[in-house]
Amino acid sequence: VSEDLRDDLVSLTCALMRVPSDEGHPEGWGECLRIARQRLEGLPGLARTEVEEGGHPSLLVLPEGVDRPEVLLLAHLDVVGHELDLFPEPRLEDGCIVGPGAGDMKGIAAVCLRVFEDLHRRHPGISLGLALTTDEETGGHHGAGALVEKHGLRAGVVLVPDGGGPNQLSVAEKGILHLVLEASGRECHAASPWNGVNALEILIRDCLAIQARIAALNNGQDDWVPTCSLTGLRTHNASINVIPDHAEALLDIRLTPSHGAAEMLETLRAGLGPGIRVRSHFLAEACELNPDPLYEACMRDQTGVVERVWNHGASDARYFCRHGIPANMSRPKVGGIHTVDEWIDIASMLDFHAILENYLEGSAR
Amino acid sequence: VSEDLRDDLVSLTCALMRVPSDEGHPEGWGECLRIARQRLEGLPGLARTEVEEGGHPSLLVLPEGVDRPEVLLLAHLDVVGHELDLFPEPRLEDGCIVGPGAGDMKGIAAVCLRVFEDLHRRHPGISLGLALTTDEETGGHHGAGALVEKHGLRAGVVLVPDGGGPNQLSVAEKGILHLVLEASGRECHAASPWNGVNALEILIRDCLAIQARIAALNNGQDDWVPTCSLTGLRTHNASINVIPDHAEALLDIRLTPSHGAAEMLETLRAGLGPGIRVRSHFLAEACELNPDPLYEACMRDQTGVVERVWNHGASDARYFCRHGIPANMSRPKVGGIHTVDEWIDIASMLDFHAILENYLEGSAR
Repeated sequence: VSEDLRDDLVSLTCALMRVPSDEGHPEGWGECLRIARQRLEGLPGLARTEVEEGGHPSLLVLPEGVDRPEVLLLAHLDVVGHELDLFPEPRLEDGCIVGPGAGDMKGIAAVCLRVFEDLHRRHPGISLGLALTTDEETGGHHGAGALVEKHGLRAGVVLVPDGGGPNQLSVAEKGILHLVLEASGRECHAASPWNGVNALEILIRDCLAIQARIAALNNGQDDWVPTCSLTGLRTHNASINVIPDHAEALLDIRLTPSHGAAEMLETLRAGLGPGIRVRSHFLAEACELNPDPLYEACMRDQTGVVERVWNHGASDARYFCRHGIPANMSRPKVGGIHTVDEWIDIASMLDFHAILENYLEGSAR
Repeated sequence: VSEDLRDDLVSLTCALMRVPSDEGHPEGWGECLRIARQRLEGLPGLARTEVEEGGHPSLLVLPEGVDRPEVLLLAHLDVVGHELDLFPEPRLEDGCIVGPGAGDMKGIAAVCLRVFEDLHRRHPGISLGLALTTDEETGGHHGAGALVEKHGLRAGVVLVPDGGGPNQLSVAEKGILHLVLEASGRECHAASPWNGVNALEILIRDCLAIQARIAALNNGQDDWVPTCSLTGLRTHNASINVIPDHAEALLDIRLTPSHGAAEMLETLRAGLGPGIRVRSHFLAEACELNPDPLYEACMRDQTGVVERVWNHGASDARYFCRHGIPANMSRPKVGGIHTVDEWIDIASMLDFHAILENYLEGSAR
């Protein structure tokens, strides 16, 4: 039986991986959902809803008559952008499946699909839902965001196996504040810079002030601290002897749950010098995931030890956290995330299948 | 006679201005020289040499048998780049000639041509030379630079009316150090910036250190101090959540004669942090112009008062300074330099003609 399960998970993962589904292949999103849908064909007592937002389709499968399942499995079938016409054929190496999307997160979605199928076959009507989205890598707004905010999706607890590790349970996620700052100065010849206002220099001064302000929030707890990275700078200026009258900076700020992203945006905006403005921004609040103690116990039963970790990135869990819905976040052993040699460990997929099965037997019934 | 002179200077200036001669119109360089050559047609006892370097023609007119005139008049007939197919017809407004090249320096070149003609007619064999170049706006290397370094041109004193003012005699020029710095880092996701090396941040740190070092040279003498402007910065990075592994900065450094540009380049290079290198540079040493006291006296006779000033920019005078040749630098009243509404005051051209005539009567004979 274990060999059959292994073969099935490998086969389903490879079927999903063979469909390029990054931004360059939007037709792959629907095709991946079609594979998933086909897989769940014939399962009784389920309502399937396909919705589309901003060109991104999502598939929601709920027990008939249930709009708030006890447990919701959430996975995404889009992959990060690769500048490839074709995706390479998935490779099997050293007990791993290797290729774009293997670890983030088609191999994991395969486990979710299989365990969803097993549980619904075994316990028809079990209060277990499944949501598959296709825009996680582009922000989640049109996937998990739309399901929660526009279609009113709720759950007792959501399983988001897109962070943590086989022995690592994520307990919180950092907030994100992305800023595009713009500076306006006054051009002049660089031989007499006092006749102008150097947009680049005033912009850098403000960026460094913002970095210093964020660094001051550091309370010294390892790397679970706010960070602020200057990730881009540009001037239109092509001449080395001209003081630039315009410059733009990109800042990537990550905040721990004790610092509100919206509040920080207002604080930083108020501190900007003359000539500097926030041209655009993206923000996601940090969140505490409040995982289910039963989930942690199932992880421990399977793998011996569980470490609680923090997520430096943001995941689709945040759309549920906003509504007070706890999230369980761990995943099989994966690596090379976002590279073309992304991989997932097959034995670890089986362990993860067992964790989900045990947890759902206890929590979703 | 004064009306005739005025008409002649206006007409010659406009004839030169009607020929577009910026980088976008390289054919205009030879055409301007042709007008100048035609003007000097029939003057006895002169040797005319046309040379070309890097596509830029220059015209050198010396008394026959003289290779080191007592006085050399130096002017350039190229103009700064304008993105125009055609240049506008020169306008006469409020006693000025207006249009690209009027002040920098076709109107001044017209005065030089006229005074050169007058003096050679009046004093055949006078030790007065004339050099007209066409690459001053692109660095002078292929014009004045080539005449001095490659063709061995020397003079007792050179007249470079491309700085100063009607009452302002330039006595020194700043040196220039243009640096393109390049930083190499290591890319990573901005959620965990400690996994990478931010090329942009290390580059900015070094640029600020260089600015601090140059600012420390400031001895407080008004604006005649070294300056260092950051005039450009770019990253190839398009994603706000990626730590950039490459960045480039443009620095425009201006040095007073007490600080050697070549020496400063070595000092700054030695102080660069790991991952930062000087990708390319341009340097011009500062120079003391050591103007002729007789020239200053002629200016004072004509305009009443003479102020000694420093040139923040660099001019073609530097190619002669290197060889210990003094330079006289003042010019008529001009403005809007490098704009399409550049202008030169006609009355001031007549004053300048008188200064040159008086000076040359005294010095070149």
